[in-house]
Amino acid sequence: MEGSSNAFPMNGGEGPHSYSRNSSGQRIFIERARKLIQEAVAEHLDIEAFSSSGVFLVADLGCSVGPNTLYAVSNVLQAVEQKCQSLGLDSQILEFQLFFNDHVGNDFNTLFRSLPADRRYHAAGVPGSFYGRLFPKSCLHFVHSSFTLHWLSGVPKEVQDKSSPAWNKGRIFYPSASEEVVKAYAAQFAKDMEVFLHARAQEVVLGGLMMLTCVTRHDGALHSEAFANRSLDLLESCLVDMVKKGTISEERMDEFNLPMYYASPQEMKEAVERNGRFSIKKMVELFEGSAEAYPLTRKTIASSWRAVLEGLLKEKMQLGDEMLDELFDLFTRKHDESSIFEFVRESSFTFVLLERSTTN
Amino acid sequence: MEGSSNAFPMNGGEGPHSYSRNSSGQRIFIERARKLIQEAVAEHLDIEAFSSSGVFLVADLGCSVGPNTLYAVSNVLQAVEQKCQSLGLDSQILEFQLFFNDHVGNDFNTLFRSLPADRRYHAAGVPGSFYGRLFPKSCLHFVHSSFTLHWLSGVPKEVQDKSSPAWNKGRIFYPSASEEVVKAYAAQFAKDMEVFLHARAQEVVLGGLMMLTCVTRHDGALHSEAFANRSLDLLESCLVDMVKKGTISEERMDEFNLPMYYASPQEMKEAVERNGRFSIKKMVELFEGSAEAYPLTRKTIASSWRAVLEGLLKEKMQLGDEMLDELFDLFTRKHDESSIFEFVRESSFTFVLLERSTTN
Repeated sequence: MEGSSNAFPMNGGEGPHSYSRNSSGQRIFIERARKLIQEAVAEHLDIEAFSSSGVFLVADLGCSVGPNTLYAVSNVLQAVEQKCQSLGLDSQILEFQLFFNDHVGNDFNTLFRSLPADRRYHAAGVPGSFYGRLFPKSCLHFVHSSFTLHWLSGVPKEVQDKSSPAWNKGRIFYPSASEEVVKAYAAQFAKDMEVFLHARAQEVVLGGLMMLTCVTRHDGALHSEAFANRSLDLLESCLVDMVKKGTISEERMDEFNLPMYYASPQEMKEAVERNGRFSIKKMVELFEGSAEAYPLTRKTIASSWRAVLEGLLKEKMQLGDEMLDELFDLFTRKHDESSIFEFVRESSFTFVLLERSTTN
Repeated sequence: MEGSSNAFPMNGGEGPHSYSRNSSGQRIFIERARKLIQEAVAEHLDIEAFSSSGVFLVADLGCSVGPNTLYAVSNVLQAVEQKCQSLGLDSQILEFQLFFNDHVGNDFNTLFRSLPADRRYHAAGVPGSFYGRLFPKSCLHFVHSSFTLHWLSGVPKEVQDKSSPAWNKGRIFYPSASEEVVKAYAAQFAKDMEVFLHARAQEVVLGGLMMLTCVTRHDGALHSEAFANRSLDLLESCLVDMVKKGTISEERMDEFNLPMYYASPQEMKEAVERNGRFSIKKMVELFEGSAEAYPLTRKTIASSWRAVLEGLLKEKMQLGDEMLDELFDLFTRKHDESSIFEFVRESSFTFVLLERSTTN
């Protein structure tokens, strides 16, 4: 049930490069999501249908470790409790079970230690890729997944195949690559979404909700103009510099590609429609209008990427600690010199609220 | 939901002192339990009542980490599948969810990595003390707990209270202590069992089964004559030697006590009857008739105790690695010189099969 190709969790523990201490950027959007979760539950959750069983099961898919993990799910709980109160239902008789899911390599030990002692829910950790079944059929009432679906189940095979026209020689990502490479990544995203939605359709009860927060690229925008893609282009150019210097071999560079894809809201919508088991109750795209408003500084961008990508670079590119320091120092400098913030307006965050809505 | 007083898990990882590599003694009894689990499921599980929902939830309480963990639950699954087949039910339409529970300090990361990739169940880890609620109401179909209930929720308060007649000065355990100390331990066991059974009564569905494998002391036997107690008496005498040598302070020795109690089958029975929500479907006491038949050698006894107690001794007695080496070397020597195997016949293993049987 566990895909091995993309099982690189965020940095664990609580050290200087940990995801736990380098995820403040994500937090800002989770706070924005708070209001949307409240609205979603208030408007669309049929709590009366669920409360008869006395239990309410919530899953956080790709939960990682850190303050954001607990913050997100506590928002869901609070919203459900408020909904109960607004209907005059006693929310105290409702028992919550919260499932924290992430890859088997995620630091569940740290996650479990961070759970509040006075929590009013039963907690469980679920190891495994969400590109596959994780839960019994028809058991989940609310699924939450935030900043996760741009992670593919793996790098598309073609981009690592020397004989394919989509071979991504000398690059680690698609934004500035050939059209074939972009197509291979887009196809992988579509396929992964199919697997994701198929699995969730089996696990979520009829009428259950799923709230996805995704990093997206504005409809119609070029891949190369999306903020995250621009940033990763800089990372690619740092690696190219290190190849030129001889620090990294050309072969290793050719073999490595990032298993990520920033879809557009339209691509998300199409995936949901193809699956056919969920209806879109809400789809909100959020922008940052100007660089000044953007919550990440140049410094925090580099640290954030390090927390996210270090495990992957260590394992797949066999970069040691010194090489990682060199890489991310260079990366920080390139950010400082770049006009990257001009591209902020082509990036967006899309909140999608789905309801499991058909009996098939 | 997590008691902190006894949250000392077995040694994690896979090193020479890990529980994972020092639990072969327990394994032998788990293998004996295999047949009993099969019989229990075959004779007492009303699988037709449960299979309509299509899911079957199993919890392993105090699962620890290691080969035994997976072996025990796979026995349960196999038994349920066999039962389905014997009734002509398609066991493939039944989905299993397995909850692995242990203290929050248990090494869940290693446990999750050890789960087989081709498992035919959904796995989840549940952190927290089983002396409290862990799951939503009425959700579990089968609970398994093996070699766990001799761990108390904590040391009885009186034995650490200088002003109490039950103060356990100069000792770490009850078998050779005053009657007051023994009574305090027995009362703690009774209280803990009450909490344990009360929580499980809420979590297990009507008709659900609970299989407990317990290390016990034969009814009527003196505490000091049970095998595990004799062994821990030797550990106590090693610590007394170290106090005499000045390696450990007298004060530290006075403050430390083991949070364990080996109950008799009769005490188990009384606890179940006091709770009143479970009926005893089976209670089998197993003995080892002679020392020769006993599966543990003197060497493996010391290693087993080390894997089990090291965390506790490190934290509560502040013993460093060197002191632990000294302690367990001495412990091994004392075992070699002791007549401990003569006491094997007063120890037993008791398998208790309970059914959640009343509607209250």
